[in-house]
Amino acid sequence: MTDQITDIAVSIEGPDSSGRFVVVCEHASNAFPAPWGDLGLSAAQREAHIAWDPGALGLARGLAARLNAVLVHANSSRLIYDLNRPPHSAGAMPARSEIHDIPGNRNIAPSERLTRTEALYVPFHAALRAQIARKLALGHAPVMITVHSFTPVFNGKARAVELGVIHDADPALALAFHAEACAATQMDARLNEPYSAADEVTHTLALQATPMGIPNVMIELRNDLIATPAQQDAMAERLAPLLLAAVAKIEETR
Amino acid sequence: MTDQITDIAVSIEGPDSSGRFVVVCEHASNAFPAPWGDLGLSAAQREAHIAWDPGALGLARGLAARLNAVLVHANSSRLIYDLNRPPHSAGAMPARSEIHDIPGNRNIAPSERLTRTEALYVPFHAALRAQIARKLALGHAPVMITVHSFTPVFNGKARAVELGVIHDADPALALAFHAEACAATQMDARLNEPYSAADEVTHTLALQATPMGIPNVMIELRNDLIATPAQQDAMAERLAPLLLAAVAKIEETR
Repeated sequence: MTDQITDIAVSIEGPDSSGRFVVVCEHASNAFPAPWGDLGLSAAQREAHIAWDPGALGLARGLAARLNAVLVHANSSRLIYDLNRPPHSAGAMPARSEIHDIPGNRNIAPSERLTRTEALYVPFHAALRAQIARKLALGHAPVMITVHSFTPVFNGKARAVELGVIHDADPALALAFHAEACAATQMDARLNEPYSAADEVTHTLALQATPMGIPNVMIELRNDLIATPAQQDAMAERLAPLLLAAVAKIEETR
Repeated sequence: MTDQITDIAVSIEGPDSSGRFVVVCEHASNAFPAPWGDLGLSAAQREAHIAWDPGALGLARGLAARLNAVLVHANSSRLIYDLNRPPHSAGAMPARSEIHDIPGNRNIAPSERLTRTEALYVPFHAALRAQIARKLALGHAPVMITVHSFTPVFNGKARAVELGVIHDADPALALAFHAEACAATQMDARLNEPYSAADEVTHTLALQATPMGIPNVMIELRNDLIATPAQQDAMAERLAPLLLAAVAKIEETR
């Protein structure tokens, strides 16, 4: 890590990395900084998957280290602002998440939507754009990977899928990575599960990668598989070579 | 105009405007600030259409005033960085434009591409994104219009088209505005002329509007029609009602 830029919206780890990968973790944090505080949630709720993607930051760091990547991650809970949603989306500041009401998100005034948008969404995506632009300008041919986790039980139903591979307009890297994961691991890896673009989960891909024409994929790990730092690191060790192989595969055929 | 933010990359006029329009002028300026200087061009070349879109800023200001819009415009020549191109495009810092060599753009080193990208492209598009995000957060349902001009004679050939209406992935507003212009004026108005998305001229539309799902259009005026401030203002007076009518038309059918 050569450098780090940090505020309540965003941290950038390794901005001078010479690799081509840009690793993104929009739901890295369950911090509830001032002026928002806990939004009326209990300590248990603030630890739960509704507040963040448990394990995702550790996995993202493990991947970034192995891919010689820059890592761009969030520093506030997605319940204050979900950085994977545009400012006009109800899901950007959800009044309800899974089975939980979010008291501090009830009837948010437009001025408060603007405050959160300007404090969190705008700087996060500006920082991410700047990192991608940097690699484009230097001729590094960037590849963007967003790293998420999902809960094993959602709305009372258990999920069998272990690795979700999600794409937006350009499916090339998702298809190639999914194929590598199926060939090289015993994981239950599925395309566009447990979420897909139809669930509005591909905003970061559409905002940051599609307009630049760069390969991109969103990966979702079931969070029981990356609960500890050791599991996160082991998963990064397993997935990093598959991402490299997938990129090589799509470039062969281009 | 309630406020203004200005640097070498970008000016924002009317950031507190309560209207829904965001007017953009990427080629507003033929300034050649330090550290780049004149790129080895003559004074005549720096006045010509290769350096900027003559008349476009005056037209954009006239439209912004009538549409109660925020205006985001460039403050440096497009020959230093063409803000309507991504950082890896040869056209972002062209070594040749129409029939002119650009000496200062010959064999640009990656570090210099990065310097220009970070000085001009990144802040311009961050500022524009912030204005769009602001209107989205406030529920203003933004509409983005980019304003350009083109030369009457290009590579020695005269152009008959007077008003070009160009779209990217979402053609709705372009089609509606073109129909209004044909119905209400005697202008020679054409879709996707003299340029189209195939010429890579729709980067700003693709970067800023498409990911947000907001109506958008690029308009191109033949620059002999907007050569003077009076002509620019008259053209704005003519086109602003057509833009409003076009937006109303697409929203009727949505």
